[in-house]
Amino acid sequence: MEIYILTLFPDMIQTVMRESIVGRAQDAGHIKVHAVNIRDYSTDKHKKVDDYPYGGGAGMVMFPQPIYDAVMAVRAQVGREAPVIYLTPQGKTFSQEMAHDFAGEDALILLCGHYEGIDERVIEEVVDAQVSIGDYVLTGGELAAMVVADAVARLVPGVLHNQESAGTESFEDGLLEYPQYTRPRVWRNREVPEILLSGDHAKVDAWRHEQSVERTKQMRPDLIKKAGA
Amino acid sequence: MEIYILTLFPDMIQTVMRESIVGRAQDAGHIKVHAVNIRDYSTDKHKKVDDYPYGGGAGMVMFPQPIYDAVMAVRAQVGREAPVIYLTPQGKTFSQEMAHDFAGEDALILLCGHYEGIDERVIEEVVDAQVSIGDYVLTGGELAAMVVADAVARLVPGVLHNQESAGTESFEDGLLEYPQYTRPRVWRNREVPEILLSGDHAKVDAWRHEQSVERTKQMRPDLIKKAGA
Repeated sequence: MEIYILTLFPDMIQTVMRESIVGRAQDAGHIKVHAVNIRDYSTDKHKKVDDYPYGGGAGMVMFPQPIYDAVMAVRAQVGREAPVIYLTPQGKTFSQEMAHDFAGEDALILLCGHYEGIDERVIEEVVDAQVSIGDYVLTGGELAAMVVADAVARLVPGVLHNQESAGTESFEDGLLEYPQYTRPRVWRNREVPEILLSGDHAKVDAWRHEQSVERTKQMRPDLIKKAGA
Repeated sequence: MEIYILTLFPDMIQTVMRESIVGRAQDAGHIKVHAVNIRDYSTDKHKKVDDYPYGGGAGMVMFPQPIYDAVMAVRAQVGREAPVIYLTPQGKTFSQEMAHDFAGEDALILLCGHYEGIDERVIEEVVDAQVSIGDYVLTGGELAAMVVADAVARLVPGVLHNQESAGTESFEDGLLEYPQYTRPRVWRNREVPEILLSGDHAKVDAWRHEQSVERTKQMRPDLIKKAGA
């Protein structure tokens, strides 16, 4: 899978996406993340990308031309239909379900705004979906795009070493994950729950499911309601 | 304000937090982001930080000792009460309201898990709040911690050049932001809405508010319901 991130901060994207599990997945050829510098596409002689908003107000707005040309260049390169996703607080809220949908694409084009956002007309012209990673405001779209890329990448077959890991996580079955314990058996007078040492897999599974349900009821009753459980 | 991010990937944190608005805010002394390497605190001779989960299952779990010692070291350094926030899908969902609460603290300690998470006992021992940036699963807590740091940093006085910018964004008044336009006035046959060129500030404000309400109704009816509007 190929993920193109259109940004004014390509170095930031490249550094983060070379690290850890996503970096390893790139080395193994499971995914490829391209950071595309929107500024490179500006036809302005000073490579300007933003201007004052019509109607007044604080901040600057990215103007359409460099974004449009960057998207067109990537689309020509991808050579097939890839959705253009604009990261914005105005978008549909990102979820594990959406991550699964995106993981089924051959390529994704993630567009990062900065400053006060981008000119509405370029959204109308080239954007297929607007996505928000949550109900809060960031200084730009870069962290949001990397969150989407990371959540999607780990669902691409081969990326996680043990495929079991993707299936037993939070949200996959509508429940939060059960508590985890590792060595030592006793730490600061706190003991690992007896049942986890029993070797009885059926009992362990039942206990973990119970813990997931309890934890979800306590922390996120909305998830239980949504599942109709 | 000081933000400590406890992680296995300090370079990733440092690179991102040096860029853009947060980087500028650090240069200006409004905030300081410290990346603390949990591995440095491991007393294991190979600096190991994780082990197999009790009860079986995929992946590895971070064991308590390095995390506990890292938190204690930072607490000693901060010299005052700073909340320890663990980034996890099991946490309370992060929001703009929570960002404002965190921005009121002198210091924040953000703890990033990796692999299958961290031993539950260290959560019980040192964590004050568990926070999730949304209903999806990431490969680690680093992007989540940076999302929280970014959303909080931009609310710290002095960080945004124009204080107006923080107040008119999405979620601040329970509505999504209105569409933005900048030069040129006509782009690919699409015109900037006439009213934005009128110079009539009252009319512009009224139009923008109307657009915000319409957009919120269309994209996020749940926000309208929540506000009781």
